[in-house]
Amino acid sequence: MERRAENNQCPTAHKAPPAPYYAVIFSSTLSDNAEGYGAMAARMVELAREQEGFIDVESAARTSEGFGITVSYWRDLESIKKWKAQSEHAAAQKMGRDAFYRSYRLRIARVERECGFEQRGE
Amino acid sequence: MERRAENNQCPTAHKAPPAPYYAVIFSSTLSDNAEGYGAMAARMVELAREQEGFIDVESAARTSEGFGITVSYWRDLESIKKWKAQSEHAAAQKMGRDAFYRSYRLRIARVERECGFEQRGE
Repeated sequence: MERRAENNQCPTAHKAPPAPYYAVIFSSTLSDNAEGYGAMAARMVELAREQEGFIDVESAARTSEGFGITVSYWRDLESIKKWKAQSEHAAAQKMGRDAFYRSYRLRIARVERECGFEQRGE
Repeated sequence: MERRAENNQCPTAHKAPPAPYYAVIFSSTLSDNAEGYGAMAARMVELAREQEGFIDVESAARTSEGFGITVSYWRDLESIKKWKAQSEHAAAQKMGRDAFYRSYRLRIARVERECGFEQRGE
């Protein structure tokens, strides 16, 4: 099986992405009783995709301790600010603090370098 | 149950963290046959913790499709560069490409704003 690196020779060098953009890194731990969280989270992903400046979103699964990471990618800080203030999203944020999250940490970071790898063929 | 926001009033405002630092956002999908990956990943976390400039690492669980996210945090780009070049880590990167990953994307991002939330008491 032959494999290759692509998108900026990940194994050997990092290069800047085509344009700078931002990542919102959201790490959270759910409360023991978080019924309804899944539906709300799915709705927020759907809604985020409709926002101006949205690029992509990635979510991993939760650990057995309820810890999960979602990273969304945005064109600029202004898009992130608008998404934070979007009314349905603002209500969901409050619901998250009132009912779903034991804790969370949110980081806004400017993506400066990026590379990727994909198996060839298969 | 009373809850509170802490660390920079997450619900209302974002502030810069105490000092700028960097996140390495590593999103990956494992191949169907990735035996031995777990042990290697655990060893890399252990090794990363020993490196100069290491701040923290967070990993969520893999989805049923084998997709996972690990974010590590570093003091500066120099620390990240040294970690990438660390010999045992370099061998693990090659092993990852040769045997474990179907695909991955690695982004290096400068954390500019941060906030957190924790349930009060309980």
